[in-house]
Amino acid sequence: MKHARYTHRGPVPQDVIEAVEFTLPPPAEGQVLVEVTAAPINPSDVLTLTGQYGSLPPLPAVGGNEGVGRVAELGPGVAGLKPGQCVLLPVGSGTWTTHMLADAKALVPLPDGADHLQLSMLTVNPPTARLLLSDFADLQPGDWVVQNAANSAVGGYVVQLAKARGLRTVNVVRRDDARAAVAEAGGDVVLVDGDDLVARVREATGGATIALAIDAVGGMATERLAQSLAPGGTVVNYGAMGGEACLVSPASLIFRDIRLRGFWLSRWYKSADPKMRADLFRELSGMIASGRLRAQIQATYGIDAIREAVAEAASGKRSGKIVITPNA
Amino acid sequence: MKHARYTHRGPVPQDVIEAVEFTLPPPAEGQVLVEVTAAPINPSDVLTLTGQYGSLPPLPAVGGNEGVGRVAELGPGVAGLKPGQCVLLPVGSGTWTTHMLADAKALVPLPDGADHLQLSMLTVNPPTARLLLSDFADLQPGDWVVQNAANSAVGGYVVQLAKARGLRTVNVVRRDDARAAVAEAGGDVVLVDGDDLVARVREATGGATIALAIDAVGGMATERLAQSLAPGGTVVNYGAMGGEACLVSPASLIFRDIRLRGFWLSRWYKSADPKMRADLFRELSGMIASGRLRAQIQATYGIDAIREAVAEAASGKRSGKIVITPNA
Repeated sequence: MKHARYTHRGPVPQDVIEAVEFTLPPPAEGQVLVEVTAAPINPSDVLTLTGQYGSLPPLPAVGGNEGVGRVAELGPGVAGLKPGQCVLLPVGSGTWTTHMLADAKALVPLPDGADHLQLSMLTVNPPTARLLLSDFADLQPGDWVVQNAANSAVGGYVVQLAKARGLRTVNVVRRDDARAAVAEAGGDVVLVDGDDLVARVREATGGATIALAIDAVGGMATERLAQSLAPGGTVVNYGAMGGEACLVSPASLIFRDIRLRGFWLSRWYKSADPKMRADLFRELSGMIASGRLRAQIQATYGIDAIREAVAEAASGKRSGKIVITPNA
Repeated sequence: MKHARYTHRGPVPQDVIEAVEFTLPPPAEGQVLVEVTAAPINPSDVLTLTGQYGSLPPLPAVGGNEGVGRVAELGPGVAGLKPGQCVLLPVGSGTWTTHMLADAKALVPLPDGADHLQLSMLTVNPPTARLLLSDFADLQPGDWVVQNAANSAVGGYVVQLAKARGLRTVNVVRRDDARAAVAEAGGDVVLVDGDDLVARVREATGGATIALAIDAVGGMATERLAQSLAPGGTVVNYGAMGGEACLVSPASLIFRDIRLRGFWLSRWYKSADPKMRADLFRELSGMIASGRLRAQIQATYGIDAIREAVAEAASGKRSGKIVITPNA
């Protein structure tokens, strides 16, 4: 058994983590031994290694916040699960590991036969996209949404979930070579960011009333989304890929009543009751299992290659997610 | 009869306005001739002359959006008003004038014997302060509010109205020599802005939970207010004295759920029903007439000195309001 552990935090995320051997006792009453099949590296994982995330686990810690696995061994008194079954790992449980002991009650059974790589990303990016689209504006079929970082994993889920709801998306990317993938994923309009973005959004949507903008870039990119919105519209920020604070002009705030908010999935998980979580997982896992919801995968790595995997995940040049496959 | 008129807009506000003679017919059915006694120059008036305001009247236009006067002559069929009576001029009516013909129904009678200079500022800054304190957070007596530009006219009204409601204020100013006036006006805590503002706010309030911040500066000053708030708190911006866009970090937005909004009194006036306006004017005019609510006055000018008056109002160095007294 091996897991990817860190004992301190530092500016170069791949330097603080390493694969180390460990042992586990047999599963106790009510516990299950799980073999982890797939666990992604999310931007929040990288920020946790560098110490820039909003909540940090005590040290030492095992990296990884989500993933899926197969039931390997049942402890006494466990009912409703069987060996070989695909299960969702508990959120925040240190998933970059070959094996994990979990309470049977904390494991969510997932559809058999589905793509484990896709399912492993169920609890972070798809719920973020889903809640960004539902919790900040009352959108009806036919309405437009504008987002930047549209070629990110969350951006791709936003495109697919918006389409499934009958919403139309204006997708902003920073590089011309990122356009094709977003259009292929179903983006209605794909634009490269720039000073005249607002005019191009207006032209592409026929001057539509846009009530929601989704920002993961910051800086003047936030103000350009703000100016693309109708009066009273909301910009929701969920990331800072540009490395700058969000900028919104007093003219947008005062004269156009634009509102700037932030979204943090961790807060949602803390406030949501078990039924809300279960409903969300059921909705999203069904879409993933049936292939209607998916993300690009850049590469997979074994647990021994955790440093290369984290380095690649932290690089700005990816066009898909990095996933750890500890038992491949 | 003379009024201060402009036929174009331009970057130097005093260059576009001039005092010119005009004539009026006798008041028609239902009309009243009013002699204007006092009309202030607000920041929004200066931005209207430079073309930077959110709504601009057609040209040519008479400057000034608020003021008070005395009834000089009643037209046929006017009841409920008498010559000599103090009245509030209609909002947005071009108040930098010696005389005005107004519909009797549009004039609000004000308490006799009150200070006309103070009453002339009734409709812009006091409602702004009052609504900033009431429309963005549910505050209870004993709660703290933090604001910057605390030595501005709105800032002074915020201090007085907060005190009247039993709220406590942390007041941020940009210059050390602005502190004394804010403390004298009743500010509970007065701090000079700077990098360590957040720590000093925490110290001065004993780490109190602050739910509302009022920003009229922008730039990093907005982020410093955001960081002074408790999670879930709201920053409301109503001005841009620093000349920069508002900055809020993704960390504040995402991890601390800070919300950034704007407030524009013109929007409130458009949406408020007549009873809401009347109630607000009654509340505030009562406080002004009794001396419980007042603003510093820097200087008064006659209508012929409109260019000097506007130049002084537009300068950043004022410590009080400039008021036009067209019939003094």
